[in-house]
Amino acid sequence: MAVPKSASSNIVIRVEMEKDAAAFGRIATAIGNWGGDIVAIDVSGGGKAVTIRDLTVNIVDAHSKDMIVQVLESLPGVRVLQVSDQTFLMHLGGKIEVTPKIVIKTRDDLSRVYTPGVANVCMAIRENPGSAHKLTIKRNTVAVVSDGSAVLGLGNIGPLAAMPVMEGKAMLFKQLAGVDAFPICLDTQDTEEIIATIKRIAPAFGGINLEDISSPRCFEIEQRLIEELDIPVFHDDQHGTAVVLLAGLLNAVKIVGKRLEDCKVVLCGVGAAGIACTKILQAAGVTRIIGVDREGAIVRGREYAHSAWRWYAEHTNPDMESGSLSDVLEGADIFIGVSGPGVLKREDLRRMATDPIVFAMANPTPEITPEEAEGLVRVMATGRSDYPNQINNVLCFPGLFRGVLDCRASRVTESMKLAAARAIASVVGDDELSEHYIIPGVFNPHVADRVKEAVIQAAYESGVARRRERG
Amino acid sequence: MAVPKSASSNIVIRVEMEKDAAAFGRIATAIGNWGGDIVAIDVSGGGKAVTIRDLTVNIVDAHSKDMIVQVLESLPGVRVLQVSDQTFLMHLGGKIEVTPKIVIKTRDDLSRVYTPGVANVCMAIRENPGSAHKLTIKRNTVAVVSDGSAVLGLGNIGPLAAMPVMEGKAMLFKQLAGVDAFPICLDTQDTEEIIATIKRIAPAFGGINLEDISSPRCFEIEQRLIEELDIPVFHDDQHGTAVVLLAGLLNAVKIVGKRLEDCKVVLCGVGAAGIACTKILQAAGVTRIIGVDREGAIVRGREYAHSAWRWYAEHTNPDMESGSLSDVLEGADIFIGVSGPGVLKREDLRRMATDPIVFAMANPTPEITPEEAEGLVRVMATGRSDYPNQINNVLCFPGLFRGVLDCRASRVTESMKLAAARAIASVVGDDELSEHYIIPGVFNPHVADRVKEAVIQAAYESGVARRRERG
Repeated sequence: MAVPKSASSNIVIRVEMEKDAAAFGRIATAIGNWGGDIVAIDVSGGGKAVTIRDLTVNIVDAHSKDMIVQVLESLPGVRVLQVSDQTFLMHLGGKIEVTPKIVIKTRDDLSRVYTPGVANVCMAIRENPGSAHKLTIKRNTVAVVSDGSAVLGLGNIGPLAAMPVMEGKAMLFKQLAGVDAFPICLDTQDTEEIIATIKRIAPAFGGINLEDISSPRCFEIEQRLIEELDIPVFHDDQHGTAVVLLAGLLNAVKIVGKRLEDCKVVLCGVGAAGIACTKILQAAGVTRIIGVDREGAIVRGREYAHSAWRWYAEHTNPDMESGSLSDVLEGADIFIGVSGPGVLKREDLRRMATDPIVFAMANPTPEITPEEAEGLVRVMATGRSDYPNQINNVLCFPGLFRGVLDCRASRVTESMKLAAARAIASVVGDDELSEHYIIPGVFNPHVADRVKEAVIQAAYESGVARRRERG
Repeated sequence: MAVPKSASSNIVIRVEMEKDAAAFGRIATAIGNWGGDIVAIDVSGGGKAVTIRDLTVNIVDAHSKDMIVQVLESLPGVRVLQVSDQTFLMHLGGKIEVTPKIVIKTRDDLSRVYTPGVANVCMAIRENPGSAHKLTIKRNTVAVVSDGSAVLGLGNIGPLAAMPVMEGKAMLFKQLAGVDAFPICLDTQDTEEIIATIKRIAPAFGGINLEDISSPRCFEIEQRLIEELDIPVFHDDQHGTAVVLLAGLLNAVKIVGKRLEDCKVVLCGVGAAGIACTKILQAAGVTRIIGVDREGAIVRGREYAHSAWRWYAEHTNPDMESGSLSDVLEGADIFIGVSGPGVLKREDLRRMATDPIVFAMANPTPEITPEEAEGLVRVMATGRSDYPNQINNVLCFPGLFRGVLDCRASRVTESMKLAAARAIASVVGDDELSEHYIIPGVFNPHVADRVKEAVIQAAYESGVARRRERG
């Protein structure tokens, strides 16, 4: 199955050329012969005998890059020092920075933002700790915390290697919703140590976004932090996915003319995201949800090792349907996949009710591709940007945290998540709605604002908003 | 004794005026009568019956502010909702922000800084953890960590109230040396918990600046972190003070024509900063240092409760001078005060050697003021910005961390601190040097760069620089 091509088309090749031996013409010819196009040349160093140049080369594919490097290495007097692609270049030195909101120009400025004037502000917070939400970055700052144990589809790659993802997330927080987010990657994967560490660093933050922490530790970590901290804690892999899924489903059922509450839903992959999706669907009124994992449908009365699965068996599948994924898909209105590539077959789709809705969200390769499902589904969504209807968490977290920070919410309630989902769905107008457009795109400029407003409203109604005056 | 006036001269008064009852003319008159000058009026809200305005008023003193508020409250139909001074206004919402270094404009950008492209960068770090210093914010980012136990002269005000100071420090890091610094205020004052927490959050950072942690815990916390982490850990209250003190002394002795190594030094206040000052002086070749605390000179052979004082007794005061501060000042060339207000008297100065050098660094009120010392000292320095020769840590930490980040130093060695001190001193040219100008000002644009260069040089010489190529 096709995996999306790398987005990079420019690479930078740093070559060292011996002045006596190397001829630039031969370098240029070699690059051209192998499909490369030199778009820029920068001299980046050298001495009497050698010169070092950075060649920015537009290439057509990865093979062309390998060949160019090989051929350059074979030229007399030429040495390839480094090859960078645009993705790596964009990461050099990190992707975010910490900048002052005002420039300190004079001694007067300095004496206000630092000693001695700052002492008055410190003492005001000392007297009224709640004012930290107003007088410090707590007002607008979220920690993006990971232990690197379940990063993207890469698995347990550890905290250092997780940093680029958390930095990317921080960029999105700021660009899409003006939220200051700082990546904290923890050098421990012990549940108690993670909880203790996050509690101890909490004073600087107005919210905690947990990210890429593996199951089942993520459940206890989130639950305990919610109970023990007075700022919102939100595990995005669980609830962000659930919110955006629900947003998509709310619009999908409009297209097929069904009520979500009446639908039979089969969910494949009962992990952290799958359980969160189940809970938000239940909060939205869906009762007939059947979870399927490796051993088939989860049914009340069976023995399960994980406590999460025991909960699942007791709270879903009211008709106690059992068997394989194919078995329980009989008559299902909605399939939700948060599992792995290719688990859903065309034959399975034929067993579903009329106008099947399929959300195949496994990344990067869905449970079934839109091409494979062609003709047998009415509405289809995936986690991918190269198909219509991308279920992407970025539709939720920026606006959700913007909202909780603005109203100083102490936690994220179920009704705030539902409100966020409805807000995302509402961005697609009834006149725009179609099988291929059930969910707004990640760059839609209205999403974060709608989500924010809805979350604030729900926070006040839930009684968790601590800011007295609104707006 | 005079304490510096608040730097604020503008205040913002938010008034609610009933449209029927209140007259703006009477408000303006009242403000004018009490020495206020309205410089701006902004309508910030209201409804049918009331209007809310923000009046920016220039005032001459705090009394005038109180009187204006009182009089306004007494006017019919007027209610004062809030009074803010400029210092507080500068802190609203915090003083720093986290910003993306590039704007994500297209799906291509997004796929490079975030999924799926970011996965390549993650895996490169996974394979070569050292590349995190290049491909993540670790390259340029320092944690400013406090537990709020000894903030400025305010004492143990806790982590929330300490935030404004740490944010101010982060501003200075960025503005003066381009270092990204993020404030981490810890909700614990337990030594082991602090050490464990900092170790666990270390992956994101290229250095740790400890700040405002009380003695004696600060010694163990710093020492253990230096040993257990592979990035530099620097307690600024100790070593920043010591570096800048030494910088000042190097120039002060030039003026009086003495060699620093030959000087008899009396240091008052054997706390964290005092001990660090002592150690850097010893590293610079000074041997005759006598520490004085509440019970007088610290002398070998006596019993001391703190292990830090036992170390001090064994390593200083070679002639075993004992007695009060006045006693041991007999014939001293240099007085260093890191203690409290007013401990040094004019009579004490008369006991010192010719051309006394007095660094009275207690904040905000020095051990003796320049006015009191008038005529009896040759070179005088304080911690204050309103006298000449301010010993201010801000001369050290930005350039020092710039240096360690640029060469990927694993720690800050004694020789790097000495190099930083010499670099700061060198900014004042021999032709500029005078009793009133021994140390550059905090806005001097050359300091951070000089310090950086000197620190990098010393780091390579010490063998702690991990970046292969220089520059």
